[in-house]
Amino acid sequence: MIIYFRSMRTKDDIKQDALFEATVKLVNEIGFAASSVSKIAKEAGISPATIYIYHKNKEDLLVSTYIEIKRNMGKSVQENFDDSLPIRDIIRNIWVKIFSYVSNHPAYFQYAEQFSNSPYNSLVNKQEIEGYFAPMIQVILKGVEQKIIKNVNFDILTAFIFYPIMALSNPRICQNFEMSDENIETAFTLAWDAIKF
Amino acid sequence: MIIYFRSMRTKDDIKQDALFEATVKLVNEIGFAASSVSKIAKEAGISPATIYIYHKNKEDLLVSTYIEIKRNMGKSVQENFDDSLPIRDIIRNIWVKIFSYVSNHPAYFQYAEQFSNSPYNSLVNKQEIEGYFAPMIQVILKGVEQKIIKNVNFDILTAFIFYPIMALSNPRICQNFEMSDENIETAFTLAWDAIKF
Repeated sequence: MIIYFRSMRTKDDIKQDALFEATVKLVNEIGFAASSVSKIAKEAGISPATIYIYHKNKEDLLVSTYIEIKRNMGKSVQENFDDSLPIRDIIRNIWVKIFSYVSNHPAYFQYAEQFSNSPYNSLVNKQEIEGYFAPMIQVILKGVEQKIIKNVNFDILTAFIFYPIMALSNPRICQNFEMSDENIETAFTLAWDAIKF
Repeated sequence: MIIYFRSMRTKDDIKQDALFEATVKLVNEIGFAASSVSKIAKEAGISPATIYIYHKNKEDLLVSTYIEIKRNMGKSVQENFDDSLPIRDIIRNIWVKIFSYVSNHPAYFQYAEQFSNSPYNSLVNKQEIEGYFAPMIQVILKGVEQKIIKNVNFDILTAFIFYPIMALSNPRICQNFEMSDENIETAFTLAWDAIKF
């Protein structure tokens, strides 16, 4: 008789985790083109045949890895989401958590950055990704409705709220930006000034 | 006797141009890792030996290609630079020109984006790059001095003035942003609100 515990990780889960980490690591090291299914399998310590149980091909593996990162990121940055706070505070809390997520998971972040700049990005179901960030999107829309946030194209808003984080947290791009609480707070002031009504 | 004309393109220039375009094209198609010197030579229609006359190795070729893009971009966006205009207008003019550069040279832009996110970026002489954008940097610093622009870490300022352009002009990231004059103007309003004192 098998007893299932919610927290119990099956052999299958462990294999999937190894595969996820191996995909991120190898792609970051040698790029999408050179990362073959057989090399990823070797890195994960599983057989290529096992990969094909979960994923129909390399593209599917790369896309699933990206979606998993976004799901994980959405969960982390919207943790303890408190809808009752003022909108500026909610967005500030998410903002600080994105910096923390990126600092703690630089490899996931690097993979996601490369992926979203690659042709594979067109294979992603955008609505699924948006679903993982739904509470955050709702807050921004609420801010627009309440005339707290500028009523402009949503892509423009996100380009100014979230995209600068990608630059600031990338030491290759911003070499003189130290991720101190003070600097993160200052940067948020600019983000808020950009979007506030 | 050889007579040199300023506008005359030598056989050597033509080869260098072909090499530049081939490097950009191949890297965008198959990535840095898979782009070998021999494949790039084939794409450019020159011999690998010719590449080694100009570049000591593949890394040097990739770095030079990036620097050439930045030089070209710096020249384009600071064209007709008018120091006598108000600071907001100078930055707005550069801003609009960056959008135009990116629209007209999507392949160069894609190469530069990938490059600055890659480990090769550490091989670039940052001061050389900054030199190509010196007039623009000077204007921002003048704005800070005159209390027109916020006195914060320079990386924070550039992350909010220029980095959102990278997102907005990338159709893979911002699918709902159309590069119309009106949208570019609206987006500039947010950039200026972010950095203004």
